[in-house]
Amino acid sequence: MTNVQDLLADAVGSANAVPGADASPDYSRDESLTCTPQTPAFVVRPGCTAEVAAVLRVAGREGIPVTARGSGTSLAGAAIARPDGILVSFERMNAILEIDEANQVAVVQPGVTLTELDAATAAHGLIYPVHPGEMGATVGGNLATNAGGMQAVKYGVTRHNVLGLEAVLATGEVIRAGGRFVKNSTGYDLTQLIAGSEGTLALVTQLILRLRPRLPHQAVVLAPFADAHELTLAVPRLLATGIDPVVLEYVDALTMAALAHAEDMASAVHESAQAYLIVELESRTAERLAEDVVEVAEFLAAQGAADVYPLDRATGRRLLRARERALHTSKAAGANDLLDTVVPRAAMPDFLAEVQRLAADTGSYVIGCGHAGDGNVHLSVFQPDPETRQQLMTSVLRAGIAAGGSISGEHGIGVDKRVYFDALEDPLRTDLMRRIKHAFDPAGILNPGVLFEPAGAMR
Amino acid sequence: MTNVQDLLADAVGSANAVPGADASPDYSRDESLTCTPQTPAFVVRPGCTAEVAAVLRVAGREGIPVTARGSGTSLAGAAIARPDGILVSFERMNAILEIDEANQVAVVQPGVTLTELDAATAAHGLIYPVHPGEMGATVGGNLATNAGGMQAVKYGVTRHNVLGLEAVLATGEVIRAGGRFVKNSTGYDLTQLIAGSEGTLALVTQLILRLRPRLPHQAVVLAPFADAHELTLAVPRLLATGIDPVVLEYVDALTMAALAHAEDMASAVHESAQAYLIVELESRTAERLAEDVVEVAEFLAAQGAADVYPLDRATGRRLLRARERALHTSKAAGANDLLDTVVPRAAMPDFLAEVQRLAADTGSYVIGCGHAGDGNVHLSVFQPDPETRQQLMTSVLRAGIAAGGSISGEHGIGVDKRVYFDALEDPLRTDLMRRIKHAFDPAGILNPGVLFEPAGAMR
Repeated sequence: MTNVQDLLADAVGSANAVPGADASPDYSRDESLTCTPQTPAFVVRPGCTAEVAAVLRVAGREGIPVTARGSGTSLAGAAIARPDGILVSFERMNAILEIDEANQVAVVQPGVTLTELDAATAAHGLIYPVHPGEMGATVGGNLATNAGGMQAVKYGVTRHNVLGLEAVLATGEVIRAGGRFVKNSTGYDLTQLIAGSEGTLALVTQLILRLRPRLPHQAVVLAPFADAHELTLAVPRLLATGIDPVVLEYVDALTMAALAHAEDMASAVHESAQAYLIVELESRTAERLAEDVVEVAEFLAAQGAADVYPLDRATGRRLLRARERALHTSKAAGANDLLDTVVPRAAMPDFLAEVQRLAADTGSYVIGCGHAGDGNVHLSVFQPDPETRQQLMTSVLRAGIAAGGSISGEHGIGVDKRVYFDALEDPLRTDLMRRIKHAFDPAGILNPGVLFEPAGAMR
Repeated sequence: MTNVQDLLADAVGSANAVPGADASPDYSRDESLTCTPQTPAFVVRPGCTAEVAAVLRVAGREGIPVTARGSGTSLAGAAIARPDGILVSFERMNAILEIDEANQVAVVQPGVTLTELDAATAAHGLIYPVHPGEMGATVGGNLATNAGGMQAVKYGVTRHNVLGLEAVLATGEVIRAGGRFVKNSTGYDLTQLIAGSEGTLALVTQLILRLRPRLPHQAVVLAPFADAHELTLAVPRLLATGIDPVVLEYVDALTMAALAHAEDMASAVHESAQAYLIVELESRTAERLAEDVVEVAEFLAAQGAADVYPLDRATGRRLLRARERALHTSKAAGANDLLDTVVPRAAMPDFLAEVQRLAADTGSYVIGCGHAGDGNVHLSVFQPDPETRQQLMTSVLRAGIAAGGSISGEHGIGVDKRVYFDALEDPLRTDLMRRIKHAFDPAGILNPGVLFEPAGAMR
């Protein structure tokens, strides 16, 4: 191993290439609930694209697996390197290279966190609108998982907001795709192919992100519903008005109780509510925002909301932040695993009812919240027995797929959900994905074990 | 050839499989200015996915090239089949299968035209917002070229509005990707890879398209600028206000004169104007629209517009329709070729100045209009000598790429622009694209000659 260690030290400098055993245990884990931490053989911290390329040339020559890591907030084990592998941490490639006002783009390195990007864009009156709940996540990690979050109902997910990238291929070659423009019909869209590929096709070293005007006025409306089914029916009707909410979240009664407890917001809990809809609105002017709040409140009341609370700015923000942290609340409460399946939003009520039936059948406990505007359902699964849990989760995901949905809406497959991906995804599709993987990475050194079985399975 | 003819008749019925020589000459051409019409060996008109699959199985077995055709409005020769090939016309697969209000999607067959889709969605208060200027185009053709159009500044291009698809692979196997949802992180995004692939990866047999609320109020503001540079500077500033125009078009003085003449709208021509900005606004309420019109008018006046005309609905519509037909106006005026290059929008003024220098250097005449909001520049090239023209167009595209742009914003490469794609596109990128092509279509039967050289070049 000494030899590889020397080669990596040549590539990134000896201070930035250390044996995994000597590195912080943070590099061995991410935030998934079920993945076993694994100490990689090497941790490298490249400082520029050329150094990433040099690392990949070493890995390619030596046949060593390579896993990219942002800030390790993956929920699917996609940032945990193999014990014989190199972990490439992008922590030093964290520069915001340019906030380009005229073209409304940010040009950034992958290690930039959403918090850092938000501060930089705010100074220009712009915003990067993808907020997947964890502002400590990096934009590189966001790209790898095609992260979504609460504002996707208005602004789309990461793939809708990345216009171009620079990436290093498994060979160490550096490609660029896309640019500071939205329209492009010049061959296959490599940016969109690499987005969401979880580090299995290339290592991204620069991103061109689309920015939007940062609208100055926001308000939140909270609407408890006695009937969860009525809530989900109200969602498409609200969207049909053209009001264009920036957030449209579903929170079930149990989750709301937990959030309210954690945040000391007892007033948010409504006695007879089975579920809550949280609507955030934004506008260019305070007057229009106030009108929209009234219109949404009246609309939801007419759609069967048990009550409607327009929240003041501070309370609204706290509630949304609490909702973003619902995952951590679940973790703290002892959840055994998480799902983030997506179904057509109109299918949510039936799907959620089916989930409760499946939970009851297995003596499990499943609570949920989710992005009501786009059918992305987050479920916390409380079932300590691994076999029963896997059976339950398979049934839940099968029900989601039968309802026209997909396994993961935003967390990705990683290694953690591969058992479900293998069992449930159409083999015609995974076969095609394997051939694409092979076209990029014939030796299979990029994040093996993520999406596909490592090594042997590659053709 | 009789044998293949029989096999195709078995696949789609004898009435729908005819030798190309017996079919209408329409099947031999598209709307590109420079592609030679070519009579295909066979024209087939499948009626369902299974028939498309059967055709592809025949083609695969016999090694016959296959080209898909919508309504033949390609501007790049991507829908012209090879003389030894099968043209698959999707004219019979033109059903709107569902307008799903709750999920705000349309499920359609590829042969549906934008006009048909617009009528169907209007009945539900919804709209498919991609309007690439030719409403007789089919959604299948739009997907193949990743069509854009004037409303992309607000709603994005085709790829941002297609959520899922069904497609037949070169093997005859049928895959499905995506669904009635926006969020998906379940392996590689095959929908996005097939979008814009110009019929070279698969034949699409069904699309799930994202719909939006059809806002009831529209208005158009026309602003002549004495200085084209000032116009392009005003664009990002207008977008930064958050007003979110649905159309933001640039028209140069010569093009406007031609449009005004063709449409009998002499009043639209402003004496001292070098260029015109056309802004379309839309809103949920008439009051807000009226406020926005005033705000935009005042804003543009402050940004140096020589004048600002809020147009009545009828005049505004006529002007936008004329702008959409600018291409046909150019054709009628004898343009020899067209470009639709894209550059970062802030690079437009310098790029347009460079284009005029290059035109003057070669004794050519280049007029332009374009999508100011997204840097997509449409140029009509008047230069009868093919060699000089190719030289000029290469220089123009090279200048666009040097400015951070790309060869085609929305028309695609087809066979028509392949000479430029070969000469100017980064070989690392085209090599990767060739490997992706090979992963989908190892025998190279899908639209050979489009994007890549046919046959021999495939690995």
